[in-house]
Amino acid sequence: MRISELAASSGVSVPTIKYYLREGLLPAGDATAVNQADYGENHVHRLSLIRALIDVGGLSVATAKDVLAAVDAPGMPLAGVFGRAQRAVSQADLYVRPSSADALARVDEVILANRWKVSRDNPGRTAAANVIDAFVGSNHGELLDLMDHYAGAALAVANADLDAVARQPDVSAMADTVVAGTVLGDALFAALRRIAQEHVTSERFPVANDDIQRHHSPQNRNGS
Amino acid sequence: MRISELAASSGVSVPTIKYYLREGLLPAGDATAVNQADYGENHVHRLSLIRALIDVGGLSVATAKDVLAAVDAPGMPLAGVFGRAQRAVSQADLYVRPSSADALARVDEVILANRWKVSRDNPGRTAAANVIDAFVGSNHGELLDLMDHYAGAALAVANADLDAVARQPDVSAMADTVVAGTVLGDALFAALRRIAQEHVTSERFPVANDDIQRHHSPQNRNGS
Repeated sequence: MRISELAASSGVSVPTIKYYLREGLLPAGDATAVNQADYGENHVHRLSLIRALIDVGGLSVATAKDVLAAVDAPGMPLAGVFGRAQRAVSQADLYVRPSSADALARVDEVILANRWKVSRDNPGRTAAANVIDAFVGSNHGELLDLMDHYAGAALAVANADLDAVARQPDVSAMADTVVAGTVLGDALFAALRRIAQEHVTSERFPVANDDIQRHHSPQNRNGS
Repeated sequence: MRISELAASSGVSVPTIKYYLREGLLPAGDATAVNQADYGENHVHRLSLIRALIDVGGLSVATAKDVLAAVDAPGMPLAGVFGRAQRAVSQADLYVRPSSADALARVDEVILANRWKVSRDNPGRTAAANVIDAFVGSNHGELLDLMDHYAGAALAVANADLDAVARQPDVSAMADTVVAGTVLGDALFAALRRIAQEHVTSERFPVANDDIQRHHSPQNRNGS
């Protein structure tokens, strides 16, 4: 299809498509004439992924480009795709700022207690240690206990993530799923956490409150 | 203590403290003379929380102010504090942009299947539905299956969150823990997910890779 048809199929404007082509986020089409190229379904698919990474994942165009480079690297083993996708979406200050040695030791305790096999440069190690420093610094040492519970939940989520990856037919599709799942999964989990928090709060601290009376559940005991 | 001593205790500069006072993030000290006030431990504590929200939680000063207003609202029930803290930290586009009706129905299926009691305006409902739209739009319908697994993990995390809240001695301390836990907990979970993903990937897709050989675990079977 021509670029105007690609725009119609994908809902992305021609100038934006040209921008992604120039920046290398979208592979070039097959040249059919001077200044004309042919695009396929893979381009429609890639445009949807680019929009999801930017609109839903909150990535910058530069970061989205880094992440997509991991998908496009030929023959990269899956662990390498994961590592590259993780690093690309973990460029926030939290993931690179040095933490205290005590906090890093606490993270490594959790890794050892769970017998997790993790490289020293996993970006999550530094980020978790920075959160621990913030807990301690803001007098919320009681929140350190969250670590063990969160680790169990994180393992369940990671297993679901890898189940979805393993169901893909080939390495290229797996890499694509790794990228979409890593970026969009953070947003999905944070959203479900907010829903579950309201439920648990209403169970443990019931109040007669307008906000709480508008329930979905037929088990709503506060409903009038 | 005087403002210079507050700066020394908290590690926050005097001009920044004055800025937080002007913006209402930090309550005024007790006036002791013209242009002089006395600050207490509660000010040191609050400054640490402000820095954690901004530096680790990635909040803007305006959003941090909204969140702290929930802590300071006298007599607000805990469900209200949670709701206000959640809304304040959920101002990203993802939480307010309308989703498709199909995606919202899918989120409500998960809520009903889990018999969760949740108000219609919980910000997580819209955000989760927007992620579902992104999964479908980017040809990653296989990632919809993540929802059920993520919901179980989110419930475990929310229970740990509320355990930490319930251990606080009074409502004011509970509100403080809700805010710190809501904001910093997202960052902690995302970090632990990255660690768990690397572990599960190395278990399921083992490779002889320099990156993977640098393990912490004594169970490392790839180590040389």
